[in-house]
Amino acid sequence: MKEILLVGSIGIDDVETAKSKVEGAVGGAAIYFSYAASYFANVNLVGVAGSDFPLATINDLKERRVDLEGLEITSGKTFHWSGKYHKNMDYRDTLATDLNVLASFKPKIPERYKKSEIVFLANIHPSLQLDVLNQIHNPEFVVMDTMNFWLEGNRETVLEVIGRSNLLIINDSESEMLSGNSNFVAAAKDIIIDHKVKFIAIKLGKYGVYFTDGQQSFLAPAYPLAEVVDPTGAGDSFAGGLVGYLAKTGDYTFDNMKRAIVHGSVVATYAVSDFSVNAIKNLTEEEIVKMYDKFKDITKF
Amino acid sequence: MKEILLVGSIGIDDVETAKSKVEGAVGGAAIYFSYAASYFANVNLVGVAGSDFPLATINDLKERRVDLEGLEITSGKTFHWSGKYHKNMDYRDTLATDLNVLASFKPKIPERYKKSEIVFLANIHPSLQLDVLNQIHNPEFVVMDTMNFWLEGNRETVLEVIGRSNLLIINDSESEMLSGNSNFVAAAKDIIIDHKVKFIAIKLGKYGVYFTDGQQSFLAPAYPLAEVVDPTGAGDSFAGGLVGYLAKTGDYTFDNMKRAIVHGSVVATYAVSDFSVNAIKNLTEEEIVKMYDKFKDITKF
Repeated sequence: MKEILLVGSIGIDDVETAKSKVEGAVGGAAIYFSYAASYFANVNLVGVAGSDFPLATINDLKERRVDLEGLEITSGKTFHWSGKYHKNMDYRDTLATDLNVLASFKPKIPERYKKSEIVFLANIHPSLQLDVLNQIHNPEFVVMDTMNFWLEGNRETVLEVIGRSNLLIINDSESEMLSGNSNFVAAAKDIIIDHKVKFIAIKLGKYGVYFTDGQQSFLAPAYPLAEVVDPTGAGDSFAGGLVGYLAKTGDYTFDNMKRAIVHGSVVATYAVSDFSVNAIKNLTEEEIVKMYDKFKDITKF
Repeated sequence: MKEILLVGSIGIDDVETAKSKVEGAVGGAAIYFSYAASYFANVNLVGVAGSDFPLATINDLKERRVDLEGLEITSGKTFHWSGKYHKNMDYRDTLATDLNVLASFKPKIPERYKKSEIVFLANIHPSLQLDVLNQIHNPEFVVMDTMNFWLEGNRETVLEVIGRSNLLIINDSESEMLSGNSNFVAAAKDIIIDHKVKFIAIKLGKYGVYFTDGQQSFLAPAYPLAEVVDPTGAGDSFAGGLVGYLAKTGDYTFDNMKRAIVHGSVVATYAVSDFSVNAIKNLTEEEIVKMYDKFKDITKF
């Protein structure tokens, strides 16, 4: 069993879909990731919240395997995101992004976090990702997420973080931005060669995930859901299940990575079936195993 | 071993991609389908070509398991399609569609074709599809393809053909046109209930195929190719491999349909790796088995 050091955003979200909406919901990559990963391993969280962040969520995380020594709570408002999904759920418009307390965040890694074997750098300013990597010594395995925004404005820093990571998680349009190639298979190959990252997982939205080490390939579908309630946090829940499973097993072989990918997909399937973290707060081991078996069932032939 | 009755277009294509182009290439759903299916079973072809259609292709098909008694060759030009693919190969613009001899085509089914147990109605005017169904007696299994164009202009006739089919093959945007639901999982469920078709295969382009009977689901990825040379005919090659395998095995259970879907994907993978039917003219059984095993490899966990 390995421990996970996590750095990422903690947020309050307003989310609107064609059918419903929520306001002031708990969100942010670090929160989705923590809930998802805590089913598998210990998470050492580094992040910042404002004084308006609900204490109930903090207490809830404490009761799990989430260490909050690295959680800073400062006066001011929590990072806020507001978005509206298109009817088909594939696209969304961001209505507001207020950094608030995240604007002046400087990650401070508690001493005992520094022994964490696995690091997850959620989608956050790449300078902060780098700052975290510089504070710890030789982690066994570094996983990073990023997004188009940082690739546009801070490309060199993103590339530096990629070069120090073992697994890069991005979506297909980001893989094109990184490589210049619109074919995600070719893009993945190029990124592995050019940026010396060992593994890459390209998220294909409702179509699943393409995973490769440049030689071997694995395709995990998304579970076919007739209704998606809220896609927010799907990628972070996926990363949480994936990295959590890696930490639980401590096995970074390609074959075990596949199982980790599917565990990520399992948690993401639950995540999108309700708003915020509602559906991934109280999963049972039985539910996780049951969905894992369903993934086997829909892919085997 | 069952026999397949096939009706579909026979064409001459001009195809342009970002990297290359061909003019006057052999094409049309019936041609792609015939090559693909002939690796697995006998095909009884019904279609029309003009006097300009290359004799070499006709002779080539005759040397396979493709019966051409139902091939009409009339004076005039063969159906012609011209298209240009966008750089990412996901979209294409149709530059010309000249029906030519297809405009006045009336399918005549040779007497000995009428014992064919499996019928494949390629994408063609739904009245022609219906005409073919009316000329034969109780086939065991009917598979149909269609497209947005017929759903716009001849919806009622398309629905009548669907109601007499066992397997409907469409793409995801067509599933939305049919059901009004942009979620392809929900769309498939609705179509099965509303139109009484037993199975539906929704083609997701480079993401693969979603297959369901309304209860069970199967997701087959497309094989991850770093380069697609020409996507033309991918869907018809897929259908050919699928229906060919069904005819070879004579087994219409869900489990065997899954294997049929993957055999379709295997042939489609080869089809897109070259222009026209070039890559599916001379496949060996070893190549088919090898690619089938690769599909197992990229999906198992």
